[in-house]
Amino acid sequence: MYLDFWTIVLDFNNNIFKVLDQKLLPFREVYIELKNKQDVYKVIKDMNVRGAPLIGVVALLGIYIEAINNSISSYESLLELMNYLQNARPTAVNIFNYFSNLKQILSSIRLSDYKQIIKDFLVKIILDEKDKNDKIAKNGYNLIRDIFRNKKSLKILTHCNTGSLATIGLGTALGIIKYLKNYYEIFVWVDETRPYLQGSRLTALELEKEGINFKIIPDSAAAFVMYNNEVDFVIVGADRVALNGDTANKIGTLNLAVLSYNFNIPFIVALPESSIDYSLNNLQNFKVELRDSLELLSFNYNNTFVNITKGSYPTFNPAFDITPAKYIDYIITDKNIYKIKGKAIISA
Amino acid sequence: MYLDFWTIVLDFNNNIFKVLDQKLLPFREVYIELKNKQDVYKVIKDMNVRGAPLIGVVALLGIYIEAINNSISSYESLLELMNYLQNARPTAVNIFNYFSNLKQILSSIRLSDYKQIIKDFLVKIILDEKDKNDKIAKNGYNLIRDIFRNKKSLKILTHCNTGSLATIGLGTALGIIKYLKNYYEIFVWVDETRPYLQGSRLTALELEKEGINFKIIPDSAAAFVMYNNEVDFVIVGADRVALNGDTANKIGTLNLAVLSYNFNIPFIVALPESSIDYSLNNLQNFKVELRDSLELLSFNYNNTFVNITKGSYPTFNPAFDITPAKYIDYIITDKNIYKIKGKAIISA
Repeated sequence: MYLDFWTIVLDFNNNIFKVLDQKLLPFREVYIELKNKQDVYKVIKDMNVRGAPLIGVVALLGIYIEAINNSISSYESLLELMNYLQNARPTAVNIFNYFSNLKQILSSIRLSDYKQIIKDFLVKIILDEKDKNDKIAKNGYNLIRDIFRNKKSLKILTHCNTGSLATIGLGTALGIIKYLKNYYEIFVWVDETRPYLQGSRLTALELEKEGINFKIIPDSAAAFVMYNNEVDFVIVGADRVALNGDTANKIGTLNLAVLSYNFNIPFIVALPESSIDYSLNNLQNFKVELRDSLELLSFNYNNTFVNITKGSYPTFNPAFDITPAKYIDYIITDKNIYKIKGKAIISA
Repeated sequence: MYLDFWTIVLDFNNNIFKVLDQKLLPFREVYIELKNKQDVYKVIKDMNVRGAPLIGVVALLGIYIEAINNSISSYESLLELMNYLQNARPTAVNIFNYFSNLKQILSSIRLSDYKQIIKDFLVKIILDEKDKNDKIAKNGYNLIRDIFRNKKSLKILTHCNTGSLATIGLGTALGIIKYLKNYYEIFVWVDETRPYLQGSRLTALELEKEGINFKIIPDSAAAFVMYNNEVDFVIVGADRVALNGDTANKIGTLNLAVLSYNFNIPFIVALPESSIDYSLNNLQNFKVELRDSLELLSFNYNNTFVNITKGSYPTFNPAFDITPAKYIDYIITDKNIYKIKGKAIISA
């Protein structure tokens, strides 16, 4: 069995497992081979791989590699191994969820069957993630086809990176854009997405690979292209959606949503149904992650480091913002197309 | 006579003339001494000095330095010298205007009186520019006092750099902020202002020098701080204002104006009355300057150069945008306070 995604290559026949080193993108595409738990720990901790589903899959792969290395000698040593790998990025929820499910499955399984069961579980997770992205893409297409009848070309604005590099498969918002290429002439405005530049570094790279026309803009030029009628719709991903449709996503999403609202441009959010937070009626009191000043005051890419202003300056660097449901037109998942304005996903 | 501004130091007694090298800011404050026309040409061309009024003053200074060097031998050699200096930055309007006025004055003057007349003209221009900034600051204070009665502290958001580094004197929008410090407790959100980072490099430096509290934010976090009621008003400069109040300013201004409009936050523009373009009823068809891709794809500060993504990626990098008058609440000049919404400066 051979599974080949851009971000991860799994040769189960020859037991060769590799991940793309995302820290070197877009300059170089270098794969890192993973031979033991230490290798796996390191690529997760050092953020050579990123994106919650991918991190989760790589951590599971770490379990499988140790199983074929015959170093899992008991259920207790499995738990120790999981504990070790979980600590590489303690906040990544997917690792915890995947491990929790696998633990339950293996608790009633003979040690000699571990290898096969872990492999089956890993492959199932990967194909499930890929399948979700495909379904999001198709739902996205269905919605766009309904909104833009008789249109042959579309000008789309997107923020951050929501493609293959952030997921297993096509991606969410960017997955929809890629799928639309089969039916429309596509042009994409790529928000560079300060401070971490996932737009100009990662989304640009994915669009280049797909042969989709695009231009990078500073985040601050979004209103300019909207005002000049150069945007048919805006589509972004989401980290969390509450029951009323409130959406937490990369900083800058609220800017785009309010601008779209003002200029009457459809604003669409795409995510797996599993990322809807059924425990929250809204995100009014949701606290967003504040990140280090250095991210805003310096650049460190392709192994070159440069301060762009004084490293001592005070900053306010929220990684995410909350977009109230009133600014969102549609939310697309692998299971549904929600028309949000005025209507909650599930009434709270 | 000794005139000492941050950006320029003029010791007329000892004939020592220096300008601040703005390319090294905020890392180092190094002054460059100007001894002849070649020195002057170089600091303008290489953009060690920036900001239209300052460039104009430095070019005039070049004329004066050559006059005291006794190298202006005739009216024709004066015209040649002006032509030489104008070519350092052919698009800078102030150089052209100042030279045009000076030419007219000198055309009826004896060569032996050139030195004194040029010096008087130079000093007058400098003091006029400084005076305009002071008047803008006072008008700004009067407006703010009327809007925010009984308030003791103000949270202000600003974009780009509109302070001493861009002008001769206090500045325009940032000049008002500095002046307000005498009457209010001030906190400033500093938009980093991609792509050229005049916010995080220059405005931050000026506020640090003034002892005013500030935090740098990515441009894309403006909506976040507005939505969280952390902005009392937004104030920016302008490159050009039409008779109906339409404003051309640094890219990102329209984003801020639309966001302010949505969140009901006063949006204020500050500029010298002389920057109002009486030849244009509006800026609907005004073409903005598109700048090089490299500005968006790389950084080159403090003499270190780094690509932040592939240098070959296509970009759309407009240096300015147009903010329609409907999004602007007030325009402040050295002569007037215009209440814009629904009312033109001069009805077209």
